Amino acid sequence: MINSSVTDIPRAFTWKGDHLLLLDQTRLPLHQEWLRLENLEEVCEAIKMLRVRGAPAIGVAAAYGAALEIRRIYGAEPANAALNADRWLHRFRQITATLRSTRPTAVNLFHCMDRMDRIAGEIALDWKDQFEPIRAAERMEEEAIAIHSEDENLCSAIGGFGSTLIPDGASVLTHCNTGSLATGGIGTALGAIYTAHLQGKRLSVFADETRPLLQGGRITAWELFEAGIPVRLITDSMAASVMARGEVDLILVGADRIASNGDTANKIGTMPLAVLARHFGVPFYVVAPTTTLDPSMDSGATIEIEERDPDEVRKFQGNFSAPPEVEVFNPAFDVTPGDLISGIVTEKGIHRPPYDFRALMAQGQPK
Amino acid sequence: MINSSVTDIPRAFTWKGDHLLLLDQTRLPLHQEWLRLENLEEVCEAIKMLRVRGAPAIGVAAAYGAALEIRRIYGAEPANAALNADRWLHRFRQITATLRSTRPTAVNLFHCMDRMDRIAGEIALDWKDQFEPIRAAERMEEEAIAIHSEDENLCSAIGGFGSTLIPDGASVLTHCNTGSLATGGIGTALGAIYTAHLQGKRLSVFADETRPLLQGGRITAWELFEAGIPVRLITDSMAASVMARGEVDLILVGADRIASNGDTANKIGTMPLAVLARHFGVPFYVVAPTTTLDPSMDSGATIEIEERDPDEVRKFQGNFSAPPEVEVFNPAFDVTPGDLISGIVTEKGIHRPPYDFRALMAQGQPK
Repeated sequence: MINSSVTDIPRAFTWKGDHLLLLDQTRLPLHQEWLRLENLEEVCEAIKMLRVRGAPAIGVAAAYGAALEIRRIYGAEPANAALNADRWLHRFRQITATLRSTRPTAVNLFHCMDRMDRIAGEIALDWKDQFEPIRAAERMEEEAIAIHSEDENLCSAIGGFGSTLIPDGASVLTHCNTGSLATGGIGTALGAIYTAHLQGKRLSVFADETRPLLQGGRITAWELFEAGIPVRLITDSMAASVMARGEVDLILVGADRIASNGDTANKIGTMPLAVLARHFGVPFYVVAPTTTLDPSMDSGATIEIEERDPDEVRKFQGNFSAPPEVEVFNPAFDVTPGDLISGIVTEKGIHRPPYDFRALMAQGQPK
Repeated sequence: MINSSVTDIPRAFTWKGDHLLLLDQTRLPLHQEWLRLENLEEVCEAIKMLRVRGAPAIGVAAAYGAALEIRRIYGAEPANAALNADRWLHRFRQITATLRSTRPTAVNLFHCMDRMDRIAGEIALDWKDQFEPIRAAERMEEEAIAIHSEDENLCSAIGGFGSTLIPDGASVLTHCNTGSLATGGIGTALGAIYTAHLQGKRLSVFADETRPLLQGGRITAWELFEAGIPVRLITDSMAASVMARGEVDLILVGADRIASNGDTANKIGTMPLAVLARHFGVPFYVVAPTTTLDPSMDSGATIEIEERDPDEVRKFQGNFSAPPEVEVFNPAFDVTPGDLISGIVTEKGIHRPPYDFRALMAQGQPK
């Protein structure tokens, strides 16, 4: 019995043709506020202020931002001598440069801006002699929609494979946010859960709150609640207890970077879940697109771990919960050894240990 | 080289003869505010509002509260016919009943009030014919001081044994608060750290913040910082990373209840540390007085786990960090299997697995 449709799953944003309707994630979980973004400045502000977050979602939102801005500036103008293709391209690249500067470490953002720039370059080259700004703006919008649509399809493919791991009646534990608010589609690990739910499987989820930034409590718990999937929120330190009680059938998490041997960098707090899962005999899966694979790395040993602002740990929701002077260790990620991972789900299928993604990527086929 | 003295270690309270000077722990870590408690009402308020917390500290504070109140009421009166021993005893038991009602699940509080009641009963019996309220009040104060002093000595004995586990230069990881603000002395697990520090050993501490109530950030990090011991605060989810980096030499935690086979109920988040410690080859010790031993329990399987208010997980300092409607699982404790515990330190010595505290308590000697 299917009780829900894909439309029940909350979305980070919706493209409305002349604006991007974006859910202000900083207002969650208490307020559901949609912003109407019409130009570069508004899109940049939304990205900088984390109103939209999650690497794929940021990339798609930025692509729409670039399309909106170039149409706002030149889109209404007919072809004319004063506006040539070179001048248009120069202006477009200023726009994407501004968007790139909003979150300088977001790799997806860079990939999306590179792609928009490349298309803009092709337009400028093809249409050098008879440049039509309206048509150029339409072409950039098409590209933004294509980027969005590809991300949706990627999520759906990942979710399809991931859902096969989730039996009817399963209890799934997840960490951080890997859902529809982090991507242009239904998400990765959470996408697998949504897919199983849409297939009519009964399931329930334990959501780790995910200190320090509480994405699990603020966003994952909210998403699942809105989608009508039974969810229980726990602190990160309670995951072991629910496993010990036999209440977790499998664990699904996302990934920031995966080395050739399967070692996986993901949000801090992921690796202890894998150790606990092994101890308690619970399957532990990583769910992520192949763009996360980094076959140039033999293992996770060389993955650099970003250390973030100590106040993220000293404070909780803006209030000090520790002495302001106390020293803090605040790594953003940890690395889960590949040999603790039961399977890695990508849009190409379910990969099983021992992992060798260098060989996989060379073949272009799942191992 | 000893750089510090025991006076650098913060204290929960100090007895001042006519009042109890108590550190308001609800104002930590930002404010160090001392309260002058002179009567029953003020002591009850401090216990109820968690201005003083930690089972042993509550018991000692309540004993002082009873002594303060009985002197306030009758202490200045000379022997007289109207005040007989029976009436005095009845009044004293009203006072201890009020104190018992402040934190109904605190076992130490009950033990301390039982003891004060017993002494009050002896006084009433001995002095039936020539009752002297001033002398009776003095005797109750002596008993409160004795309770305090015994707790100090207990902590010192535990700390002495515990400190032998800490080599010079060690990095220790701890969870929750087991220090001088939780007891009448220097604490249990943290007491071992203080003792090693006072012996001149160089050491550093990783303090888990300990969600949901953040005793590690608010109290442990503050205590250690004040005592001049290098401390780094981490979220509970970061403990695995510091172990994986080889930066933890041993783990010391407290206990709420220990079954005959060593299974240990302690603050939620303790058990995953023991699993991680085994995985990473880090010794894991429980440090607690023998009053925590419950040899009537064969194992931890029958220890009932209190579930607390869901808002502790949904909120922090009054602000929601999750949807107010979301379901929560909020167990106060978890149970660490005895076979994951490298040693259990009490005031009688260091007990090693396999544990059999029923036999130990029957012998009255450490195994």
